[in-house]
Amino acid sequence: MDPRVRDHAETLVDWSARIEAGDNVVVDVGEGAHDLAVAVAETLGDRGADVLTRYRSEEVERAYLRAHDGSFDEPFERALYERADSVLSLRGTRNTSEGADVPAETRRAYATANAPIRELRMDTDWVSTLHPTRALAQHAGMSYEAYCEFVYDATLRDWEALAEEMAQLKAILDEGDEVSLRKESDDTDLTMSIADRTAVNSAASVVYDSHNLPSGEVFTAPADTEGTVVFDVPMTVRGSPLRDVRLVFEDGEVVDHTAAEGEAVIEELLGTDAGARRLGELGIGMNRGIDRITNQILFDEKMAGTVHLALGRAYDATLPEGESGNDSAIHTDLITDMRAPGTELLVDGEVIQRDGTFRWER
Amino acid sequence: MDPRVRDHAETLVDWSARIEAGDNVVVDVGEGAHDLAVAVAETLGDRGADVLTRYRSEEVERAYLRAHDGSFDEPFERALYERADSVLSLRGTRNTSEGADVPAETRRAYATANAPIRELRMDTDWVSTLHPTRALAQHAGMSYEAYCEFVYDATLRDWEALAEEMAQLKAILDEGDEVSLRKESDDTDLTMSIADRTAVNSAASVVYDSHNLPSGEVFTAPADTEGTVVFDVPMTVRGSPLRDVRLVFEDGEVVDHTAAEGEAVIEELLGTDAGARRLGELGIGMNRGIDRITNQILFDEKMAGTVHLALGRAYDATLPEGESGNDSAIHTDLITDMRAPGTELLVDGEVIQRDGTFRWER
Repeated sequence: MDPRVRDHAETLVDWSARIEAGDNVVVDVGEGAHDLAVAVAETLGDRGADVLTRYRSEEVERAYLRAHDGSFDEPFERALYERADSVLSLRGTRNTSEGADVPAETRRAYATANAPIRELRMDTDWVSTLHPTRALAQHAGMSYEAYCEFVYDATLRDWEALAEEMAQLKAILDEGDEVSLRKESDDTDLTMSIADRTAVNSAASVVYDSHNLPSGEVFTAPADTEGTVVFDVPMTVRGSPLRDVRLVFEDGEVVDHTAAEGEAVIEELLGTDAGARRLGELGIGMNRGIDRITNQILFDEKMAGTVHLALGRAYDATLPEGESGNDSAIHTDLITDMRAPGTELLVDGEVIQRDGTFRWER
Repeated sequence: MDPRVRDHAETLVDWSARIEAGDNVVVDVGEGAHDLAVAVAETLGDRGADVLTRYRSEEVERAYLRAHDGSFDEPFERALYERADSVLSLRGTRNTSEGADVPAETRRAYATANAPIRELRMDTDWVSTLHPTRALAQHAGMSYEAYCEFVYDATLRDWEALAEEMAQLKAILDEGDEVSLRKESDDTDLTMSIADRTAVNSAASVVYDSHNLPSGEVFTAPADTEGTVVFDVPMTVRGSPLRDVRLVFEDGEVVDHTAAEGEAVIEELLGTDAGARRLGELGIGMNRGIDRITNQILFDEKMAGTVHLALGRAYDATLPEGESGNDSAIHTDLITDMRAPGTELLVDGEVIQRDGTFRWER
């Protein structure tokens, strides 16, 4: 076995999920994640955890959903999560398009029936991670070997050191009232209020309220957004490519939009509900192991030197106790590259990052 | 997909497990049983059942057990079975020797901790079946293509017709008091009492108290065994080959034994406990789709033209209400071929089967 698979398993179990002896752990094994499942089982055995492995196959789910009449009860697996301490989701599909011919209506009905289960899973110390597969390499437009390098560079970080670095940025955001983004390379000139908000140091561990491995971003919930932003990092959203999406905000709301590609998707997103025209997240990528877009938001949004803004729902963790933030059925991240010359990220007028480099990195 | 996989899934769901809309079904997916899992999910979706797929990987289990200190709590998955109507076990290993280097002590401790879970699973409408893999073909000494033919010949029977045929034999055994086996080709001359016992028509369906697919045997619990039997069907028991095991019974108990090969294993089995020297089962194979020994008891014991006797524990279903049969920690089936010329199976002195052919087949 590739020794990095074992390192991945240990990082997941010890750093991310903080599993201890006697913990009840549900492990979701993706179709292509067998090797990681073996390494995770070994690590969990050594730590004295109790384990139940589930099979999460896109092919199995597609076959089930296509054959079903679409009227679903709440799944009986509820009982499992009531006693689970952690859920480790080992993603690793063998075909990113496997769900392409499942009727959207059936998928929606199934998602609705599963909503209480998702809530229960999120009440545990859950962590989602990804094992490299050929399908994911293909989706990223990369060779399998290069994709493996990419995944492990992103995942096997010195998380303790990164958490400390991110703590600096979190402190600045927690104290700050206003964030601005400015770019000379395009129209970007955006100002957002972050007064009273708490930033999350997303250091790939449940003790940081961070449930993705890899992670490596600091995020908060902006308000009163004013100005223009151009998302120059190409992405695929709802199956369609987006390029150079340009949004203009007034009073926190999108009032104008253009795109070099994907105009219709942006239109559709903005029309979802009132909250879809407002921002739910400002995230600042800090993972230097991620140096390219692979069409996997799990990685893309954490790329160091980028900033992402999400249209739609805000995360509770960033809001003052009792306050509910922007609400929406969507949460769609869009990414802007901060590495071009003449690019600045400012907090209360002070330059925190210039041309993709933080002030403490200079 | 091989259309036989879909037929297998439908036989499993409809004939064997009798799944209905709204049933809660746990599906155990063996490492090599992915294709069958897809077909089973499709069938369960169509029938409107709720499904949870577990991953049963020998590699995952080996890694977990080898790393564990051997002190296990009762698994937290208990809650799952309390709400499950059925458990469908799709076996299909990728290496029949994968558990070879798990310490026996760890394995025993794990089995003990899992005993209550096994009981809960057996309280559901459980069915165990097998998807052909290269590893199982190799274990059987067959090419993969030939092994697939073998598995589907055994599994895709006209179960309704076979159940009717087996009902005839069950009626004879239920009315009969004494079964005898006689062979001219060897020393076999054995007599067993079956008075007051109820035979089980094992027709591969939960409605027949039959939990294996394929099945195809009628079995009961013999007593007061007298005489000699030679098991001329070669088998592998506890990893050792057995050949021509010859047992002599007096007053229901083994008083002498020889073997052309595997003497030590027989010695070990007989020494387990008092019940290990007595018979717990007389089974009569009736599945004409099974025409060879493949070193899988799931198939071997159901081969038409063979009879198997098990040393050890008797099944409750064969005993009068309230009576407990032979008790033992073992239940080891040994098989004798009834197809050689001059071979008879008699009930109360009447020939029921001669040279492997039942009287109604003549």
